[in-house]
Order: sequence, then structure tokens, then C-alpha cells
Amino acid sequence: MNMSTETIVALASPSGVGAINVLRISGSRAFECAGKILHKDEQENFEPRRVYLRRLQDESLLDRALIIFFPGPNSYTGEDVVEIHCHGGEVISNRIISALVRSGCRLAVAGEFTRRAVENGKMDLLQAEAVHDLIVAESPAAADNALRRLDGELSSKIKRLREQLIKIAALLELELDFAEEDVRFADRQEINERLTEITGNITQLLSTYEKGRGLRRGLRVAIVGKPNVGKSSLLNAIVGSERAIVSAQPGTTRDFIEEAVQIGDMRFRFIDTAGIRHSQEEIENEGIIRTRRRIQDADILLFVLDAARPYDDLDEEIYKECSSASEVETRKKIIIVKNKIDLDQKNSLASLPAEAEISISALKKQGVDRLQELISKIAKQYFSAEQKEVFISNLRQKDALEKALEFIRLAQQSSIDMLSGEFISRDVRAAADELAGLVGEITNDQILDELFANFCIGK
Amino acid sequence: MNMSTETIVALASPSGVGAINVLRISGSRAFECAGKILHKDEQENFEPRRVYLRRLQDESLLDRALIIFFPGPNSYTGEDVVEIHCHGGEVISNRIISALVRSGCRLAVAGEFTRRAVENGKMDLLQAEAVHDLIVAESPAAADNALRRLDGELSSKIKRLREQLIKIAALLELELDFAEEDVRFADRQEINERLTEITGNITQLLSTYEKGRGLRRGLRVAIVGKPNVGKSSLLNAIVGSERAIVSAQPGTTRDFIEEAVQIGDMRFRFIDTAGIRHSQEEIENEGIIRTRRRIQDADILLFVLDAARPYDDLDEEIYKECSSASEVETRKKIIIVKNKIDLDQKNSLASLPAEAEISISALKKQGVDRLQELISKIAKQYFSAEQKEVFISNLRQKDALEKALEFIRLAQQSSIDMLSGEFISRDVRAAADELAGLVGEITNDQILDELFANFCIGK
Repeated sequence: MNMSTETIVALASPSGVGAINVLRISGSRAFECAGKILHKDEQENFEPRRVYLRRLQDESLLDRALIIFFPGPNSYTGEDVVEIHCHGGEVISNRIISALVRSGCRLAVAGEFTRRAVENGKMDLLQAEAVHDLIVAESPAAADNALRRLDGELSSKIKRLREQLIKIAALLELELDFAEEDVRFADRQEINERLTEITGNITQLLSTYEKGRGLRRGLRVAIVGKPNVGKSSLLNAIVGSERAIVSAQPGTTRDFIEEAVQIGDMRFRFIDTAGIRHSQEEIENEGIIRTRRRIQDADILLFVLDAARPYDDLDEEIYKECSSASEVETRKKIIIVKNKIDLDQKNSLASLPAEAEISISALKKQGVDRLQELISKIAKQYFSAEQKEVFISNLRQKDALEKALEFIRLAQQSSIDMLSGEFISRDVRAAADELAGLVGEITNDQILDELFANFCIGK
Repeated sequence: MNMSTETIVALASPSGVGAINVLRISGSRAFECAGKILHKDEQENFEPRRVYLRRLQDESLLDRALIIFFPGPNSYTGEDVVEIHCHGGEVISNRIISALVRSGCRLAVAGEFTRRAVENGKMDLLQAEAVHDLIVAESPAAADNALRRLDGELSSKIKRLREQLIKIAALLELELDFAEEDVRFADRQEINERLTEITGNITQLLSTYEKGRGLRRGLRVAIVGKPNVGKSSLLNAIVGSERAIVSAQPGTTRDFIEEAVQIGDMRFRFIDTAGIRHSQEEIENEGIIRTRRRIQDADILLFVLDAARPYDDLDEEIYKECSSASEVETRKKIIIVKNKIDLDQKNSLASLPAEAEISISALKKQGVDRLQELISKIAKQYFSAEQKEVFISNLRQKDALEKALEFIRLAQQSSIDMLSGEFISRDVRAAADELAGLVGEITNDQILDELFANFCIGK
């Protein structure tokens, strides 16, 4: 029996206590299985997509619930689908699911509904991934990007690129049919130009990966500076601010303290070594190594100075780390934060080159609001260049694009080397296949297994 | 503005990560508010109770979601209701809720949807409480009982009793109109008999309170016995058994360890003093006091004996506590558990009177399954006497019934004392009013505020 002909059931709403739970059934026997738990006096002909309040029962009354029938193919999965909206709480939904299992359904595995939607052509793989990204989105900006991919923006872009590649390959292959006559339908120069244009498009998409990750997981803001400049106080002031919605998370390494903070519609991860004790001798070496690591990982750098102490060599060393990192990766912006402005000012430093400079008192919560606005503004600029663009969102997408790029480069090299069209076309087709795999037009069980394993059950 | 004319919105599904979230809007402007976030090309005339897949948008696309319109009064609240089934995850639902708030809704408070359903006559207070009990039900048996109350079983019983009281009062009041003529429509003897019958019904309902609590919170099984008979091992064996679904909960007092265990369709709370250290001198006094307290609170008593040690005075003392408690409250059943049957048997005790006796080895997990079956069987007997009965479920219900009972007794006393019909009727009416308050026919804001404060938001 083909797996997708089995009728599956799962809780589609989150588990926990709430007013309503939604159960979803999908498969060729969905209507039959649902019918078996309907009170026998209430089994009239149901109109598609209309909501009915019905008694569900097995040996005893299970619930009074809303039931909706979605005949395939006009359903989420493309199969016959039944949704049951029952009272909240685990007992009721578990009992209904058990009754449905007895009536012939089996429990769905993670992502199985969406997988069936893909297999039945209701959505492509990129859209399926967008569904997942949407559900786990931690910020409105991340949800926006997932919605655009769900709407097919990325898919149509990839499909366009793939069609262009196939056209080029077809042209080259046509030549082969006339090989003896030594006809050239495709000017090598023109083919190279068209491949270069495609390469540019793919490279641009690849460049969105880092930003997509920033959107999804939150931009990383590193708080750097020598000891006792007030880095922890600054982190506390930002986290404690009423404008910020906060959840504390343990850092990814033991060296770091990381706090997720929502500012505006974006999520940020503030990273600090606050609370880590150094022995006096360690500070210079170990401190710089740690700082360097945080700077490398960060999208925005808050370089904190103590306005009440003179600017010294250690400040300078840390600043240099920031500025050279920012030169290498221009997306990394530096904000110079002069802290402790409530104390006597002894830091007569001339302005250092940076994206912005701000004076604050973390302890007195002065200027922290303005700092948050500044961070938010820089983040908007960070994404704005590609605001019209949809971002790629995971390693699978990145890998497929990189492989496609590699095949195109091989094709271009063959073209430059004046190899036969057949060599060029083979690589162009391979690149096209990578893009086909990306949207899911070519796929296999292993890829699907891995992709949907990350989904929640019921999706 | 009347509170119930405001249009409210809330998440109706549990919060957390799932495939689908359900948002609910209710109020006179529900359709208008929902319309404002519909894509302008997709605002056709919607048929009631039909599911539409639509784009929701504010400044930008919010989601592609299912939307259903339930025109009042045929809706959950009796008002116009809109349900939106959006993608799971907090960001999406929060954004849609925010957009709806901007379009004129306000956030619902706890229980507000159900409160409106009560205020609009869609259900009575007992049914509203059943909705709550259903959602928080921790066992199928508890859910069953809540479902029966949701179906109106308890309500119609209370209403019948109330009508009987009103008839009696009316008869007595009719007499008053003819007072000068000294007519007696109502035979005092007959009235007393009818009141006694009503008293019997109310008393019977009150007697379900303890059982209802047992159903809801789980029957309490106390593990008692002298030190070192293997009480902790027994608790561990039961909790660790594969058949049991377990969640550890701190005991209600510091003296106790309490573990919730699901056996069959019922929930049990196993109570033990395992892990509590006694000094040697304390054992006899303090141990007995603790044991007595546990015995008083319990529904089922597991009296544990060490089969490898002779039966001694302390065993006997504890057994007597059990047996006298069981005599006072016949619902308390004793199971004698002879533990450590894997060791040499030195306990040559003749059988003690008890509901059942079982030999086990908690350490080797021998006989633990049979013990669970025994507990399950006793629990079924415990509820079976009233299996046809619906149980009352909370203190409010108990209080109202007790007050009604008190008024009826006053009426009966007045009748016995040959007081004027007016005194009797006043108390009979007061009793009827208590029952009216119980189903919610007479109510006030304070009662409703208290009752719905325990509900979840979105219900």
C-alpha cells in the first residue's frame, strides 16, 4: 500500500490548554473514518467546506464539536480532508484521535500533511519550507519573508532561472543533431553572457542567506569593550526596558550570555560576556580572543567606552578589532556607546569612525531608548537594500544554489575551453536539475524525509 | 457602552507551536472588523458557516488563512462571530490580533466568550462550568462527566427541582389570598413529604461532590504502613510502570510525596511519606499522626506489610486506623499489600478483613500490574453506584445546594411548627432562588466575575 493512501490524523493546533483544538484527518478514507464517530442521527449529506456542529461518539459521547469536510483536490493536502474543532484540553482531543484510529486512521508523522500537499502538487518544496518557517518565525520580519516564499516569490524566481538554463541546454543539444554539418545555433559568446547573468542572479540569492538567517534567528548585536565599562549594565538596561519583549536564553557557548530582545518588528540577540570572571592576567589575552570571536559572529557591534575613564590602549585594541571586521564585512556596523555619562567625564576622545555614536548612562537608563532606536534603524538599513528581494532561508536552499552555481561555472569553463556543446549542455542541465530539486520538481524520499522531519506533527 | 456590545478578539487555540491557530472574534462589529483585514479583492458576500481561504492583510500581507462567519444568534456567543484559522506560531496570530485591534476589536478577558454565551442564553452557568471542566479534565472519566453537564443533564435536574419548589410556594401563597376564609389548598403533611423528597434529591446531588472531586482531581490512594515495609519502592514501581502515564507533582503539604498516575481511563494520586526521615523516637507518635492524616484524606488505602518480618504492634495499630476509617466512610476501601515476597516469608499473619489482599515484590516489580488492576476495579465500583448520575463539580455548586437545603429545612420546620403559609413559602422561594442562581437564571456581576476569572482567555 502506498503510504499516501493511508488516512492520517493528528492534532493541528498546539498542545496545551486552550478553548479549541483542531484535529485534521487526510486520506482517501477521511470521510468514512470521520463518519464512524458521528452520532448516527446526524450523518446527513454534508456540503463541502461548510461548518456543522455535531455530536461525536464512540462507545460514549466524545464531544460536541464543529466538523468540516474538504473534498480533495481542493484541500490542504489535495486529498479528502476533515477538520474537527473540538473543546480544548488534552483528554477530549486524545479520545477523539483514539476513536479515529479505531475507525481506521493512523497517527500522522511530522510534516506528513504538508508532505502530501507537496506530493499532490498543492505546493512546492520551497513553499513547504516557508510553511515551516512561518510557524517558527520569531519576528514579524521573519514571518513576512516566509509569507512571501509561501506566496511563491522564491519559487517563481528559481523556476525562471531553471527555464533559462534548459533553453540554453536545448540550444546546445540541437547543435549536436547537426554535428556533422558543423552548424552553430548558439553563439558561444552569447551563451556565456547568458550564463553569467544567471550566475549573477544565483549569487545574489546566495547573498541573502546570511541576512535570511539574521531575520529568522535575530540579528546578533555584540556588546564589546574592556572590563568595567558597563557592558552588563547596558545589557540589563536593554533587556529590562519596557519596550523590549525579552526571553533569556543560555548562550550558544559557555563564554557568552545571550538575550533575545524584540525591538519594533525585529528580533535581536544581544551577546555579552557579562558575568564571566577573568583573572587579572587573563584579561588582555583571553579578553581579546573572546572579543574577537564575538565580533566575528555579530551583525552589529556596540563598542562600549567608559566616559569617566581615559581612552587607553585596550580600548584602542578593541576598537581596531571592530573597525577591521567592519571593513572586511561592510554589513557589520559599529555603534560607539559612551557609557557612564552620569559621572565626571574624563574621556576626551575625539570621535572614532563609526556608523553612529551615542552617549548613555546604562545605570540611570539614560539614552537607552535612543540606542534601541539606533539599532533598529541600522537593522532596517541592513535589510532594506534587499527589501524587494525574498531571502533564502536554510542550508538546503543554499547548498542547491551553490551546486547549481558550480555546474554553471564548469559549463562556462568548457565553453571558454571550446569544448563540444555536449560537455557544456551536460553541466547546464545538471545546474537546471539542482534548481529543479530546490523547488521539488525532482526529489527523492531521503530528501523529503529529512526536510519534513523538522516539521511539527499535524502540519 | 454595554460591555457585551464591544467586539472582542482572542486566540482560542492553545498558545505554542502548532500547525494551526484559531482566532475568535465576537460582537456586533465582528464582521466589519474582520472585513477590514481582508484583501480588498476578496470581500465578496460570505455565506454563513462556510469556510473561505483568504488573504489577510493590514499594511502588508498577514497570512493566507481560513475564515468563517457565524452570524448571531446561531453562534457560540449568540453574537456575530468570526473564526480565523491561521498558520501556527505566535508571530502570525499576534499580528492578526493586533491588526484586528486596530480595526476596532479589543482583547477578550478570561472566559468572556462563554460569559457572553451565558448572557445571551446560549447556555446556562452549569454548562459554562462544564465547558471549563471539560478543557481542564485530566482523565476521560472526568471529561465524560463534564460532557454530560454540558449536555444539560445537571441543569435539567436542578430546573426540575426548582419548578417543584415554586409549585409548592405558589400553592402556599394562594392560600394567603384566601386567608380570611381559612382555606387550605395545600395539605401540610403532603407539602412536607414533597419537600422531603426534594431534600433527598439535593442530598443525593451533594453526595456526588466528593466523588466529582475524585473524578476531576484523581482518586487519592494513600500508601500506608510502618517504616521500611517498602512504601517508596511500591510508589516507584507504580509510577515507573509502563502502563502508567505519570507526572510528578509536589504534595499539597510538605509531609507528602504525591504522584499523579493514569490507570485505564482514570486518574489517581498516590500519596506517600517516602523520603521523609523520622528520628527513631518520633516514629511511633509522629508516624501515626501522619498516617492518620493520609488515611483521612484518601479514597483508597494501600496498607503495606513486610512479608519478611513478623506482623507487629505497629502494623496492627496502622491497620486499625485504616479499618476504623473504612468503617466510618464505607467508600474508603482497604487493599492489603504484602510486599517483599521475593524474600523469606516470616509474616505468618492470618488474613485481615479488607476489600482485597495481594502479594507483591515492589523491588522485583512482581504483582504490581495486578495491584493496578485491583485499584482500577475498586475505583470503577466506587463510581459505578452513581454511574447513571451526573456529579456536581465545584464549591459554588455545593454551596448553592447546601443553602437550598438549609432553606427547605427551615420551611419544613415552620411547617412542623404550624407557622403561617407565608413563612413556609418565603423559605421555599429562597431555596428555589438558590437553585435559580445555581443554573444562572438569577445571577449578578460579582458571581459571573468570579466564575469566569478561572477560565482561559479565548474561551
